[in-house]
Amino acid sequence: MKLSIFEPMNSFGRHIILTSYGESHGKAVGSVLDGFPAGFEVDISFIQQQLDRRKPGQSNLTSPRKESDQVDIQSGIFDGKTTGAPIHFQLLNMDAKPQDYDHLKEVFRPSHADYTYHAKYGVRDHRGGGRSSARVTAGWVAGGALVQDYLHKNHNISISSYVSQIGNVLMDSTDKKFTLPQIDASLVRCPNNEVSDLMIQAVEQAKLSKDSLGGVITCVISGIKPGVGNPVFGKLNALLAHAIMSINATKGFEIGGGFNMASKKGSEVNDNFTNKGGIIRTQSNFSGGTQGGISNGMDIVFRVAFKPTATIGIEQNTLNTSQDEIVIEAAGRHDPCVVPRAVPIVESMAALVIGDLII
Amino acid sequence: MKLSIFEPMNSFGRHIILTSYGESHGKAVGSVLDGFPAGFEVDISFIQQQLDRRKPGQSNLTSPRKESDQVDIQSGIFDGKTTGAPIHFQLLNMDAKPQDYDHLKEVFRPSHADYTYHAKYGVRDHRGGGRSSARVTAGWVAGGALVQDYLHKNHNISISSYVSQIGNVLMDSTDKKFTLPQIDASLVRCPNNEVSDLMIQAVEQAKLSKDSLGGVITCVISGIKPGVGNPVFGKLNALLAHAIMSINATKGFEIGGGFNMASKKGSEVNDNFTNKGGIIRTQSNFSGGTQGGISNGMDIVFRVAFKPTATIGIEQNTLNTSQDEIVIEAAGRHDPCVVPRAVPIVESMAALVIGDLII
Amino acid sequence: MKLSIFEPMNSFGRHIILTSYGESHGKAVGSVLDGFPAGFEVDISFIQQQLDRRKPGQSNLTSPRKESDQVDIQSGIFDGKTTGAPIHFQLLNMDAKPQDYDHLKEVFRPSHADYTYHAKYGVRDHRGGGRSSARVTAGWVAGGALVQDYLHKNHNISISSYVSQIGNVLMDSTDKKFTLPQIDASLVRCPNNEVSDLMIQAVEQAKLSKDSLGGVITCVISGIKPGVGNPVFGKLNALLAHAIMSINATKGFEIGGGFNMASKKGSEVNDNFTNKGGIIRTQSNFSGGTQGGISNGMDIVFRVAFKPTATIGIEQNTLNTSQDEIVIEAAGRHDPCVVPRAVPIVESMAALVIGDLII
Amino acid sequence: MKLSIFEPMNSFGRHIILTSYGESHGKAVGSVLDGFPAGFEVDISFIQQQLDRRKPGQSNLTSPRKESDQVDIQSGIFDGKTTGAPIHFQLLNMDAKPQDYDHLKEVFRPSHADYTYHAKYGVRDHRGGGRSSARVTAGWVAGGALVQDYLHKNHNISISSYVSQIGNVLMDSTDKKFTLPQIDASLVRCPNNEVSDLMIQAVEQAKLSKDSLGGVITCVISGIKPGVGNPVFGKLNALLAHAIMSINATKGFEIGGGFNMASKKGSEVNDNFTNKGGIIRTQSNFSGGTQGGISNGMDIVFRVAFKPTATIGIEQNTLNTSQDEIVIEAAGRHDPCVVPRAVPIVESMAALVIGDLII
Repeated sequence: MKLSIFEPMNSFGRHIILTSYGESHGKAVGSVLDGFPAGFEVDISFIQQQLDRRKPGQSNLTSPRKESDQVDIQSGIFDGKTTGAPIHFQLLNMDAKPQDYDHLKEVFRPSHADYTYHAKYGVRDHRGGGRSSARVTAGWVAGGALVQDYLHKNHNISISSYVSQIGNVLMDSTDKKFTLPQIDASLVRCPNNEVSDLMIQAVEQAKLSKDSLGGVITCVISGIKPGVGNPVFGKLNALLAHAIMSINATKGFEIGGGFNMASKKGSEVNDNFTNKGGIIRTQSNFSGGTQGGISNGMDIVFRVAFKPTATIGIEQNTLNTSQDEIVIEAAGRHDPCVVPRAVPIVESMAALVIGDLII
Repeated sequence: MKLSIFEPMNSFGRHIILTSYGESHGKAVGSVLDGFPAGFEVDISFIQQQLDRRKPGQSNLTSPRKESDQVDIQSGIFDGKTTGAPIHFQLLNMDAKPQDYDHLKEVFRPSHADYTYHAKYGVRDHRGGGRSSARVTAGWVAGGALVQDYLHKNHNISISSYVSQIGNVLMDSTDKKFTLPQIDASLVRCPNNEVSDLMIQAVEQAKLSKDSLGGVITCVISGIKPGVGNPVFGKLNALLAHAIMSINATKGFEIGGGFNMASKKGSEVNDNFTNKGGIIRTQSNFSGGTQGGISNGMDIVFRVAFKPTATIGIEQNTLNTSQDEIVIEAAGRHDPCVVPRAVPIVESMAALVIGDLII
Repeated sequence: MKLSIFEPMNSFGRHIILTSYGESHGKAVGSVLDGFPAGFEVDISFIQQQLDRRKPGQSNLTSPRKESDQVDIQSGIFDGKTTGAPIHFQLLNMDAKPQDYDHLKEVFRPSHADYTYHAKYGVRDHRGGGRSSARVTAGWVAGGALVQDYLHKNHNISISSYVSQIGNVLMDSTDKKFTLPQIDASLVRCPNNEVSDLMIQAVEQAKLSKDSLGGVITCVISGIKPGVGNPVFGKLNALLAHAIMSINATKGFEIGGGFNMASKKGSEVNDNFTNKGGIIRTQSNFSGGTQGGISNGMDIVFRVAFKPTATIGIEQNTLNTSQDEIVIEAAGRHDPCVVPRAVPIVESMAALVIGDLII
Repeated sequence: MKLSIFEPMNSFGRHIILTSYGESHGKAVGSVLDGFPAGFEVDISFIQQQLDRRKPGQSNLTSPRKESDQVDIQSGIFDGKTTGAPIHFQLLNMDAKPQDYDHLKEVFRPSHADYTYHAKYGVRDHRGGGRSSARVTAGWVAGGALVQDYLHKNHNISISSYVSQIGNVLMDSTDKKFTLPQIDASLVRCPNNEVSDLMIQAVEQAKLSKDSLGGVITCVISGIKPGVGNPVFGKLNALLAHAIMSINATKGFEIGGGFNMASKKGSEVNDNFTNKGGIIRTQSNFSGGTQGGISNGMDIVFRVAFKPTATIGIEQNTLNTSQDEIVIEAAGRHDPCVVPRAVPIVESMAALVIGDLII
């Protein structure tokens, strides 16, 4: 029986392994990507674009923290090409304001990881959530974007995510593909204009009331050939679930017909095979592109639910580290809905899973 | 770039590793459990009970296949106690009827793994689904039950699952705990008598119409101390999602407030901390017992969605291996709803995750 | 800090993973091989031949234990071919005589693992060494032989081992290749007839005096193309060292020029590159086929040192579990030199390393 | 069958994982240490001391490259203590002179990794060996030193290495422990004054003749309690062999009696147990502190052989990338014997193995 139970779980993948490091208000966040193929010409602009989609301060709907999130690659690239050696992506923390968090040093904020980190580690970097902050996902996006670009250029695989729900505002059909311009035309990354407007209103309202909203991201991956994924504990859906549920604030994952299939009959949702010009396809896609954990050549479609941001500006009752009941109010820089910024994170984690299986 | 993409993913866990082997109609299915502590007195009766809850032929609502599923432990136990050596659980296939599947040798059944295995491996053991059959979960339950028993006896952790939905029949509140007798009093493992009756009717109706039904299992884990789980890719919720989505026919996983939280405000679903007689608790449990991926001492509550069994007795259009369009009808032994039999599988996979983290 | 420190280390490999189970006098020993490619026609006779070379009772120079070591494959094969599913190799223990070991139940035999297992696990299967017995290597050989056969047939890689030293009797040059008939013409698997005769005399003498002898096995692997192995912790030499030093009773591993290179100058042992008909080769092979941890196309040559068998029939002073000083004498079935039987084990472990890297 | 065979092997360990990155003449080398316990006060001076023992330019016996090798810790430390989060150690390359290597861009230097990297990756960072350079071990030493310090302070385990052979100059008995002052009093880290003088002469002679020398490092680990290490593929000796053979230029590893035991009888080298004031010890230590792969409480003693540095200033025949035969002479900055600088590397890798097993 272990007394202290913590383990090195800051790496993801088996063949292409991303190792993450860094804290919200430390010197830097970053990642080391190991196992990436040699000879690939690195398109920094794509990586930076994904980082820019993730960073705070993109619009007045997000946190005002100012981070340029300029990535610096320190190894694994020579003459513009990958060498097969591990690639170190570094992002310095420029707008770290540790002193802003002094008043929270001994507070367990509701639905944050303050208490659980305290319970686990004894010591805790309380500044902006420390290691539990979503800021650390910048390193994931850097590595994931490289893999995403490789998959696109070498395997013709596209990974496309968008916001399909914020609060009570929902898009109708959420298994379609959209283009990046369609998605990013919207401040909240919802490709349906009318729904996007309603979402923006909802976020603005939440901001005004110092509250926060949850949401759902839909991800569609196309171009995956049949045969990707592995029985029995390496099912494509299980690996995706692991990757996606590693993202901060996620509370649910479903693939294809998802939870709705629980209420269906087999005769309603079985995907019949059909021959489309010599290619095997299914007539419907309730399976979400995977059967027995292995891809069948149809689009992979999954959805991920995010809870509302835990940080709100409304008074809340909670405890401090002495277990005294206290009242807290404002809390750092307020971000009423992080879901739009999570879009490139979802894409990156999906890319890491797919890349791990087929590169 | 790999031409053939398959990898050894028949093992689960890092500290307590279960390695699964076997096919539906081969000689045996089984598992090897490595890393289990020495000196634990093995209660075969608990393991066998969980296997009996999983096996076919329990009632006239399930597959008529007759398997005693008597577990034979071939290593790792000496004088009734574990020795720290790997424990091999073997279950011989007694009622294998490979010839029953001859007519399916060249058929890609809808929503089965026939086609994806064919695409991946080229060769395929078509008999009853071969490696993709849920029969292989017998080996998981054997190993998982040992871990579950250990967690209960040495850590006072209880893992309890029940059926909260079959087709359109739903239980109301699904984060409560129930006892094994309450759950197993019901043929469909639903602890609410009235709902259970409706579920049984639904399954009988599906059986009559040769159709199948999906459903939802709720799992409540109590007794986990604060501090279990690891940032950032070892989050307790992410590891559970991986384990649970590895179970055959699962399409969705959610924890705590789950998908419903997407439509909520932070002020509605933040879990405020409170001091209950010197113990830190939260007033609500929308987090489902985990914050920042680490347990907070509250019950872990998750739900998993199952699609309806792919095997139905109704005519379906599909393809054979020559890509000709064909019509198939009856299909092996019909099991109108496997969700009740999946209850011990969910418990076993949850036990493997928790055991991996704290034993 | 962990109180009890044991971990699941009964698996070897990353892509082709062998999981080992079983004890010397339990029901069975065996292994599960995961990740092996689909569609390979299994040649049971080769596997059985390697098992026969390992089993006790081959000649009057070895242990008299009678084990047929007939392998039974229980999964992963269909119509004579591998399916990509895990392959379970089972070998029942037929000549288990647990009662022969009753008198050793409370004894810590010198240079055996009795004490260290006791210290680690508290409980211990004392019968014939239990899990620490070399009998468990039968399962390794079963899996390793399949990989060895695959490497030979699909990659034209040959792995050939022989005994180059027993006690004070040494072969002269030990980086040459020999054929299986040349090697197995000798009871002690030494392909030099005169040296073989001297070795046999030495073993017979050791047997008479109830003593035991150590030795060295040389292994030559040919046919590996340049580029196999990985920096920095996946060096081919490091992976081979790990695999080979996992074999019971090994005390040393060296590759190419080995320990002798410590006394050489760079100008003496640098391997100059030369163009042999368009193929890059080195003029000498002090590197042993690997530079920077990666194969260079030359033969991989390594040597492994075995200590003398710990079990001897001579009186020895030692302790029992109560820490009383005692004298022990005969000890189970006496095997004066196990090195010849270790030849197929070395080949199997080398095959697992190479297979893991290139299949 | 994979076409390109490379894998992420830049991480070492299972519980405390060191991930290495960087090239000899890139921006930086470094490592990320994951799984290290929280709450440990970091003694930067010990880490820096070990780095200083490894760095070039320590004396006129080594490479003249000037690197301060000042470590910068960028994450995982808060208020001077570890937090349980991954620790990023960064060492900028200050004296990188990539242009010094322009003439080697298309040369396969003898016994270097130029050709094997070229064969594996196609592209290659040729500057000073790129990823294959021993410079990358600076990152290993940073992480390993932290673990070494922890083991010393929290487990009273000491890891002590020294040079026991350079070229033809050998120390007599090489299983004794020596203190750091005894070892570092010698420019070549040999604690026997007379032998040290002879070694220094040998190195100076090699330097004059533009040649290089190999050597042997002995490592003695004391304070390890019985029960550390794991059967069957996690044997303490096997894990040490893996770690140590990962160090650049190593050609052999032996533990306890090592290769000499091959020529001994069991009655000569069995380690009899004896009761020393209530503590179980062995009378001799031919086992080198491990039996059945598990520690027995005696000192762990191993030796590692290094080949002479491949870089020499003497003319050598070799090939260029066009496979033309060429003659090369001087090559970068000449280091006639790297063995003394490898002492802290051996200690660090040993610390990573032991730490992985017991922290």
